[in-house]
Amino acid sequence: MNYPVYLEKLINYYKKLPGIGEKSAERLAIATLDFNSDEIEEFSDTLVNAKNKLGRCAICGHITDEEICDICRDETRNKSVICVIEDYKSVFSFEKSGKFNGNYHVLNGLISPMDDIGPEDINLASLIMRVESLDEPELILALKPTIEGEATTLYIKKILENKKATISRLSYGIPIGAEIDYLDNVTLEKALEDRKKIS
Amino acid sequence: MNYPVYLEKLINYYKKLPGIGEKSAERLAIATLDFNSDEIEEFSDTLVNAKNKLGRCAICGHITDEEICDICRDETRNKSVICVIEDYKSVFSFEKSGKFNGNYHVLNGLISPMDDIGPEDINLASLIMRVESLDEPELILALKPTIEGEATTLYIKKILENKKATISRLSYGIPIGAEIDYLDNVTLEKALEDRKKIS
Repeated sequence: MNYPVYLEKLINYYKKLPGIGEKSAERLAIATLDFNSDEIEEFSDTLVNAKNKLGRCAICGHITDEEICDICRDETRNKSVICVIEDYKSVFSFEKSGKFNGNYHVLNGLISPMDDIGPEDINLASLIMRVESLDEPELILALKPTIEGEATTLYIKKILENKKATISRLSYGIPIGAEIDYLDNVTLEKALEDRKKIS
Repeated sequence: MNYPVYLEKLINYYKKLPGIGEKSAERLAIATLDFNSDEIEEFSDTLVNAKNKLGRCAICGHITDEEICDICRDETRNKSVICVIEDYKSVFSFEKSGKFNGNYHVLNGLISPMDDIGPEDINLASLIMRVESLDEPELILALKPTIEGEATTLYIKKILENKKATISRLSYGIPIGAEIDYLDNVTLEKALEDRKKIS
């Protein structure tokens, strides 16, 4: 297909986005041409601003356009409970569920010797400081159930051994709505291990 | 959800695109933050350029970044055959099929008395001029099978009555891969009407 140069370029940018293939990128690019000039100008500025003006919260590492993020500044939240997550995208998932009223700590990665990522490469030093500053800290580790997630969970457990922190991890098990017939073996095994007494 | 301002704005722009809902827009916006600064800068410039530097071909009305589009400038194409379409997006569809070697004429609309769009509001005057300039013009009307498409087809047929142009329209019928059981009545009726002798 011979697209005009700028349309082709626009298609290529959309194609870099996750889940956007050739056909969708074309549709999005062509639809973008229907925006009016003001909208385009603003869309274009927003891209640059979103990249340049968003930084990391000095306390928890979540993305924010201020020094400290909304969540860390919110006095109504329980500062003693810290949910430890791999990246800031998970903050949005937790916040959307609306069921967590504590704070977060974004590691910005997981320990992975294969990829040469050690404990010093992720945001752990400040986690220890936060834990030490609290009277009765409770940590909830919400890391994915992979080798890297498990390694990081174990490491955090170990370095906090002598601090008086309560540490838990999210339960593994059957996702709500799933058909048990179609579950993979590992999930089923974990669901058995983590089974919950009901009477 | 309390997103940082610029992330929220970016999500809102993605949401304006067709087929992008709340969840996809969030995913796209967050993925965009992972672009490096150069990519963001270029993406942003491309948006503005795509809007400002793309215009309409002076001959056929297709979008182009030059005075005359690639297709009209292509000397290997058959200039006597003109495929008449509603908007430039269809040019891309035909070009992708790779089966058409003529030229196009983009009407940029269809006659629609309901919406107060008359023959003078669409790109018809230049179509007549093109037809008159050719020795043996052949027109293929590729307009959608709606009231507006039919009205425009009939109007073009009428105004070219005294010119020596061959005029055809695309066939209506069963789309390839469709289950006949699930076809709507009108398509089935058209497929019967347009049936093709095979022996």
